[in-house]
Amino acid sequence: MSDAKLQSVISALTQVATQLNAMPTSQSAPDANCVKLNTNENPFPLPMMVMQSALAALERHYMYPEDDNLSLRTAAADAYGLSQDQVIAGNGSSELLGLIYRAFLSPGDSVAMMSPGFSFNRKLAMLQGARFLEVEWGESYSLPTEQLLLGPAKDAKFILLANPNNPTGTFVPVAEIDRLVDQSNRLIVVDEAYVDFAPDDALRLVDRHSNLMILRTFSKGYAAAGIRVGFGFGHPELIGRLRNLQNVFNMNLIGHAVGISILSHRADYDENHRYIKHERQRATTALSQFGFSVIPSHTNFLLARVPPGQDGKWWHASLDRRNILVAVFPDDGLENYIRISIGTKTQMDTFISAVRDISESL
Amino acid sequence: MSDAKLQSVISALTQVATQLNAMPTSQSAPDANCVKLNTNENPFPLPMMVMQSALAALERHYMYPEDDNLSLRTAAADAYGLSQDQVIAGNGSSELLGLIYRAFLSPGDSVAMMSPGFSFNRKLAMLQGARFLEVEWGESYSLPTEQLLLGPAKDAKFILLANPNNPTGTFVPVAEIDRLVDQSNRLIVVDEAYVDFAPDDALRLVDRHSNLMILRTFSKGYAAAGIRVGFGFGHPELIGRLRNLQNVFNMNLIGHAVGISILSHRADYDENHRYIKHERQRATTALSQFGFSVIPSHTNFLLARVPPGQDGKWWHASLDRRNILVAVFPDDGLENYIRISIGTKTQMDTFISAVRDISESL
Repeated sequence: MSDAKLQSVISALTQVATQLNAMPTSQSAPDANCVKLNTNENPFPLPMMVMQSALAALERHYMYPEDDNLSLRTAAADAYGLSQDQVIAGNGSSELLGLIYRAFLSPGDSVAMMSPGFSFNRKLAMLQGARFLEVEWGESYSLPTEQLLLGPAKDAKFILLANPNNPTGTFVPVAEIDRLVDQSNRLIVVDEAYVDFAPDDALRLVDRHSNLMILRTFSKGYAAAGIRVGFGFGHPELIGRLRNLQNVFNMNLIGHAVGISILSHRADYDENHRYIKHERQRATTALSQFGFSVIPSHTNFLLARVPPGQDGKWWHASLDRRNILVAVFPDDGLENYIRISIGTKTQMDTFISAVRDISESL
Repeated sequence: MSDAKLQSVISALTQVATQLNAMPTSQSAPDANCVKLNTNENPFPLPMMVMQSALAALERHYMYPEDDNLSLRTAAADAYGLSQDQVIAGNGSSELLGLIYRAFLSPGDSVAMMSPGFSFNRKLAMLQGARFLEVEWGESYSLPTEQLLLGPAKDAKFILLANPNNPTGTFVPVAEIDRLVDQSNRLIVVDEAYVDFAPDDALRLVDRHSNLMILRTFSKGYAAAGIRVGFGFGHPELIGRLRNLQNVFNMNLIGHAVGISILSHRADYDENHRYIKHERQRATTALSQFGFSVIPSHTNFLLARVPPGQDGKWWHASLDRRNILVAVFPDDGLENYIRISIGTKTQMDTFISAVRDISESL
């Protein structure tokens, strides 16, 4: 094999594709038997009717999925009171985030995101060769509207914020978002991945603003992270251009079927959402008793400051030894925090017992 | 809603995203009861064990799919005698084609493809703002190696060819591809979507050349177009850079499970592949009797020149009136051809009867 030839091929890559080194072989998956509270999954069954739809779709395995996700987009438009051309459907909202980055960012451009936020976005910016501006949340995690309009972020091609926010779990009143979108000329992307556990949502703003895009996913509120179903809502002109950039057949038949069926069985999840809010409160109370300081959460996870003496990584390792996985964010200025997803009652009992044991052994 | 604000958002789009107008609302799906012979699907059941794997995966619906498709890539490496870092897995090979275009093409660059070829590639080039150079096949659909090495295509960032080719169904001996790859310094991408119906494949060349990438899909040979499973095989350095650009969680759990299971049950498809080759011969013979001139096929479809007097569109419309869908390519210089996928025996009987009826009514 000629190395010169490989170099010739590599030299044909675009600048951005060259910046990143070849990816190393990835890590193996976590132990299947662990108490997995690190990625905010929703470990509950799908409603029976949703499962039935998935099984029926599986029978059509040999057929190409519907072009442009038409039926799914129509179903989402009906469910959310929008028109079909205001809806794009994605293989998870992660695909849609990627499209937005590709549509708006050339090398040297910048994008602004609230910090701390979903760090996945840093990689997306890097893939476009774009600068990633992090804007700190205001006091008590309020929206720093002035900063976003007039600070260094004012030249960003778009502004991204999650509401509720990950990993803080905090929620900004929709009126604040309305005011920001109203006063800005740039696109504001609001990721509502965790909205099903929050007191309000911004969907009603879509018809009022042409510079707003809202992202949703069925990974958190609807127990379908493994199926990959996400949506973007916005002005038809903008949605249409994103659809242009989208890969053909971006979702498979199962994604379409599960998405459509969840849309018509959303009420079946009410109990699940009530359960998670209840368990969230129980875990908050328990953690507080062991000296953790928990940020009030509007999501299906908790961000908790660990008691003085140890840091987040120490707690992560201590829990990991008991086969309990939580998330830590030392690179985001959250060295003293752990993030815990709300799981089943059994999982939460195991987690709370482990925290008690570890605390008592200190 | 302020139109000025919309214009401001649109003006923030990249040049390429602006070139394309907003996509119109798409067409509805074809009649579910039609005889669908237009997209080269393989309308046969999945092996029972593959179906079982899909059902088991569905039970894990709430969990994120494995990162970087590790198990699927490992299974494919084992099945094809490669190493895991020579394999990228895609949501269909269409996703992988899109990645290659993004990795190699900046606005103004060019890509070369054999013509007639898979016209989907024209759109991919347009999405990068790249020029799409079409190089005509040589006599009897041979590879015009000199043209590709020295003609206008010599400045292309990469060369794409499908073997067997779509929509012609023709096959180039692997030795010809070996020679082209050997003599070229550029990346040669060989799309082997239809290879399961062909006499040979180029996979053994992957270890010999660092400027070769081979694409495979389970959409044609393995009856899984609706599940979206595709692979790319090539040098680890190149594969790693493509994996860098890939969206996180690009395949869902069902895609992983079906892909892995098909890889270990490929022998179960031997009968299906024999059947398709047999039926392909029967349809070729029948069409010839009605005055069609059929290009010998190495795929699961036939490209047939219609008898003098009518063109491909006329035949397409005549068959459509009988609820039979075939494909036509008037924009590719194939005005007088129709392309017919090989379906079930019942579908092929219906198709042949319809051609007989239409021929006799002329």
